[in-house]
Amino acid sequence: MKLYWSSASPYARKVVITAIETGLDKKLQTVPTAVAPNKPNAELAPQNPLMKVPTLVTDGGEILFDSRVICEYLDTLHDGRKLFPAAGGERWRALRLQSLADGITDAGILCRYEIGIRPAEKQWDGWIEGQRLKAIQGLDAIENDGELLSGAVNIGHIALACSIGWMEFRNTHGDIRKGRPKLFRWYDEFLKRPSMQATLPKA
Amino acid sequence: MKLYWSSASPYARKVVITAIETGLDKKLQTVPTAVAPNKPNAELAPQNPLMKVPTLVTDGGEILFDSRVICEYLDTLHDGRKLFPAAGGERWRALRLQSLADGITDAGILCRYEIGIRPAEKQWDGWIEGQRLKAIQGLDAIENDGELLSGAVNIGHIALACSIGWMEFRNTHGDIRKGRPKLFRWYDEFLKRPSMQATLPKA
Repeated sequence: MKLYWSSASPYARKVVITAIETGLDKKLQTVPTAVAPNKPNAELAPQNPLMKVPTLVTDGGEILFDSRVICEYLDTLHDGRKLFPAAGGERWRALRLQSLADGITDAGILCRYEIGIRPAEKQWDGWIEGQRLKAIQGLDAIENDGELLSGAVNIGHIALACSIGWMEFRNTHGDIRKGRPKLFRWYDEFLKRPSMQATLPKA
Repeated sequence: MKLYWSSASPYARKVVITAIETGLDKKLQTVPTAVAPNKPNAELAPQNPLMKVPTLVTDGGEILFDSRVICEYLDTLHDGRKLFPAAGGERWRALRLQSLADGITDAGILCRYEIGIRPAEKQWDGWIEGQRLKAIQGLDAIENDGELLSGAVNIGHIALACSIGWMEFRNTHGDIRKGRPKLFRWYDEFLKRPSMQATLPKA
């Protein structure tokens, strides 16, 4: 399988972590791919007209995106314990946490695009504050709901670890550890997993 | 079930259409909810810290978001034909089309926020052009892949109809019908469905 990928993308990292956790990483060939919202990537466009990573080409030549779809697909290719619980409350808790974590990441990325890519005179505090609040409230909600972090590793945990890892890597929101001891006790433990250590983002 | 909802949101519309198509709409109580990226909604935040619609509170009191998770959850509550195919190629085709349609919608919404909400002097052509290209290329890809539109109605078709309906409602991208006869033959037919007619967006 071929994965259009970037080391700094938290969504591409989700996919590679999923592959490692499910023993599929040897079957995944990563293709370093540069994407930015103001720079069209004509090479990626035929595979994914949204020009985003991650984008997967399966062994059968089918194209899959975004990270949620790719991760769920990979999870069907192995016989071990599933990262996407099959049904019932466990499934919805995992998928809700994935949504929340992805939503925090999205808000973080929009902050970074605003501050890191947009010309300084075009930056708007109203936008930055709005997106920052979403991310910060999201982290606080997880800090205050111990149940979300418990139980066997699922795709929600992986999404959350990628979100936090990316926010600390880009330092988009200052010291996000402050006031969130439970969340970061969990994160620092999760960070020890070989799948996390093998996928540390690089600039 | 209680659905935090806005008439103009293409993602909230996805959920209501899913409910109608699966015969669950009578069980859904919609709560009109105003959200905007620069206006925090303190009432919604305890349910969804990202402060986005749609957000669902199930009969059991569980909270679910975003639209993908809610729609998949609703699809487990009925015994009819499933909008999320259970497995195999049919499932991935449906989920990929949903991702593509949601990605087109996301790019469209970012264009609208830029032009409709951001102060004029802070608007950046580089951003608008980048997001516009994603949406336009996405529509073209669907026009050129007849298979995506064929087969029994699935969640990908619903997401696509909501995306197109929203782009025409907001007129974010000019005349998107031009040069896409197959896509709009499909759309105009889909638009006749009672679920589409019952959920036309209002400003």
